[in-house]
Amino acid sequence: MKRIGIDLGGTNIVSAVIESQNGCHKVIGKAFCKTKAPRETESICDDMIGLCQKALEKSGSSFNEIESIGIGIPGSVDPENGVVNFASNLFVENWNIVDMMRKCMCSEKYSTDKELQKLADRVDIFIENDANAAAYGEFLAGGAKNSNNSVMITLGTGIGGGIIIDKKIYSASNYAAGELGHMVIVKDGKQCNCGRKGCWEVYASATALLKLTIETMKNHPESYMWEHSQELRKVTGKTPFESAILGDESAIKVINTYVEYLACGAANVINIFQPDCLVVGGGVSNQGEYLLAPLRKCLEGQTYSKNLKQVTKIVKAELGNDAGLIGAALLGAKL
Amino acid sequence: MKRIGIDLGGTNIVSAVIESQNGCHKVIGKAFCKTKAPRETESICDDMIGLCQKALEKSGSSFNEIESIGIGIPGSVDPENGVVNFASNLFVENWNIVDMMRKCMCSEKYSTDKELQKLADRVDIFIENDANAAAYGEFLAGGAKNSNNSVMITLGTGIGGGIIIDKKIYSASNYAAGELGHMVIVKDGKQCNCGRKGCWEVYASATALLKLTIETMKNHPESYMWEHSQELRKVTGKTPFESAILGDESAIKVINTYVEYLACGAANVINIFQPDCLVVGGGVSNQGEYLLAPLRKCLEGQTYSKNLKQVTKIVKAELGNDAGLIGAALLGAKL
Repeated sequence: MKRIGIDLGGTNIVSAVIESQNGCHKVIGKAFCKTKAPRETESICDDMIGLCQKALEKSGSSFNEIESIGIGIPGSVDPENGVVNFASNLFVENWNIVDMMRKCMCSEKYSTDKELQKLADRVDIFIENDANAAAYGEFLAGGAKNSNNSVMITLGTGIGGGIIIDKKIYSASNYAAGELGHMVIVKDGKQCNCGRKGCWEVYASATALLKLTIETMKNHPESYMWEHSQELRKVTGKTPFESAILGDESAIKVINTYVEYLACGAANVINIFQPDCLVVGGGVSNQGEYLLAPLRKCLEGQTYSKNLKQVTKIVKAELGNDAGLIGAALLGAKL
Repeated sequence: MKRIGIDLGGTNIVSAVIESQNGCHKVIGKAFCKTKAPRETESICDDMIGLCQKALEKSGSSFNEIESIGIGIPGSVDPENGVVNFASNLFVENWNIVDMMRKCMCSEKYSTDKELQKLADRVDIFIENDANAAAYGEFLAGGAKNSNNSVMITLGTGIGGGIIIDKKIYSASNYAAGELGHMVIVKDGKQCNCGRKGCWEVYASATALLKLTIETMKNHPESYMWEHSQELRKVTGKTPFESAILGDESAIKVINTYVEYLACGAANVINIFQPDCLVVGGGVSNQGEYLLAPLRKCLEGQTYSKNLKQVTKIVKAELGNDAGLIGAALLGAKL
C-alpha cells in the first residue's frame, strides 16, 4: 500500500511516497524544493503537487496506487477542518490548505495528468502539526515502534513535543497540546520567546547548548573547544561533545550542565506520562549514546519508578527527517 | 442502574451505592469506618464488605441490583491484575485485593447473605488509583462533565493528579502516570520527599500553603492572621484567605505568592495537555473563586492560547469525597 507524505517546512518542502508492507513503512521516493515563504499559498500548493509528481516518478509508482495524502505543518493546525490556524514560519493564518490543494490538483495546468485529477476526488488529504507527525512516524516505524504510549522531544531551535497515547496522536480538543518546551523548570529564570520565564527550551534546546558552549569558551581560552572549532561562528552542537571525549574539562562541564537541564524536564515528562518510550530527536540527538547515556544516568532517582515493572525507555529518534514524512503519510491509515 | 464504589483511604474506608440514570450519577447510600492501618488485609476486606451491606441498606437496594464494584486506592495499583503494587498509607505491597475480596464475600461468615455470595460470582471488581478515580468521577458527574479531555489536580498533603484523555483514565502501561506534583518547577529548589528538589507540590500543595502562612505570621506579628487564628496550631488553609478579604497585607502576600506557584505548574499542565477542563480539588479548592479568580488572572499570558478557539476552563471540583466513590463505581461501566 502506498501513500504520500509531505513535510511543508519553513525552509524546505519535501514530498515522499511511503510504502507500507506487513507493518513496515518506508520512503521509496522523495523530492524537495525551497519553501521561499512568504509567498502566495497557491504557488506553495503547486510546488507540493509538483514534488508529489517527482517523488512518484522516482518511486516508480503512479497516482492510481496512492491511498491518501498527509501534510505536516509547523504551526497550529486544525486537522478536522483542514485549516492551518497559524504558522509563523510560513507567514500564514486561517489557511484552508486542504480545499486549496484539491482545487489546484483539479486545475487546468494539470489537465494532462488525469490520474492526479482523479486522485483529488478519490483520496482524503490529512494535515497535522509537524512535531506530532514526526512523533507518529517514530512510533510507527522508528524509535518508539511497538509501544502504546510514547513522547517525542525534538531538540532544535526550541524543544518540540509530540505525544502518542493509545497508539494515536494526542493534540487535545483544540489541537494545541504538546508544548513541552514551554514547561517552566526554573521559575523566574531566563526569558523565553513565549513570554514566560524559565521554560525548558531556554535551557535544553540545541540553541541553548550552543549558547552555553560559546559562553563557556569565552571564559576558558585554554579549552580544547577553541582548537576544535577555530572560531566562535564555527561552533556547533558537536563542539562540546567531540572535545569532551578528549578530556577537555570545560567541554565536560558544558555537557554536564546541559544534560542536567535536559534531564530535569525529561523527568517531569516521565513522571507525568510514564510513556513506554521517550524518543529524543533533533540535531543534538545525533550524538547518540554520548548524549543518552549521561541523560539516563541523570534521570536515575528523579523519576517515579519504585516497584514498577516497566519503566520508560530513553531512545534516539531513528528516522531523522523521514519521521515527519512517514507520520504524515500514515495519518489516513486505519491502524 | 446501581453500582458500588469504595474509597479505601489511609484514614477512612467509605462504601457507597451509586445510581446512574440518563447520564447522571449520584450517591444514594453511604457508610464508613476507620481504616486503622496497618492491619490484616482480610479484616480490611471484611470491613469493606460490611460497609457495602450497610450502604445498600441505607439506599434501600439489594445486592441483586448491583452491576459492578470499584475500589479507589491511594497507591500504585495494577487494575489489569487486580493487584495493589504498593500503598504506603495502607502499609501493603503486592496485595491481590480483588481475589481476596471475592474469597471473603464467599466465606462462611456471610453464608446467610446469599445475594452477596452470588454477587461475588456475578460481577466484576475493578480497582484504580484514588486520584484517577476522583478525576474520573469529576469527569463523569462533576466539574469536568461534558469534556473529552480533563486534568484534575488535588491540593492536599501533596498535589495529586488524574488525567482523562478521550473520556478514559490515562495511567500509562505501568499505571503510574499522572504524578503532576512531582514536576520540578524550581530547579535545585526546596527538597521534596520524592528525592527531587523543587517539585510543584513543595510550593503549591495545601501543606505548602500552611507552611508559607505560618512563616509569614512569624515575620509579621502585626498581621490580622494572628487575630484570626489565635495561635499557630490553629492556622489552616482558610487563615490567609479569610484575613486577606479584610485587607491584611501579609495575608494578601501569602495568597499572591501561593497562587503564583500554583499558576506556574498549572500553566505547565495546560501547555502540555490543553485539556478542556482543569479541575482543582482538595481542601484549598473550597475557597472557590477566592482561589480560582486570582489563579486565572495569573495564568494569563502563561499559556499557549494564541488563535485558539477553545481554551482550558479552570473549574472547582464539585463532588468532594464523592468524586472518588462515583469514579470507582463507574470503572465497570461501558460509557
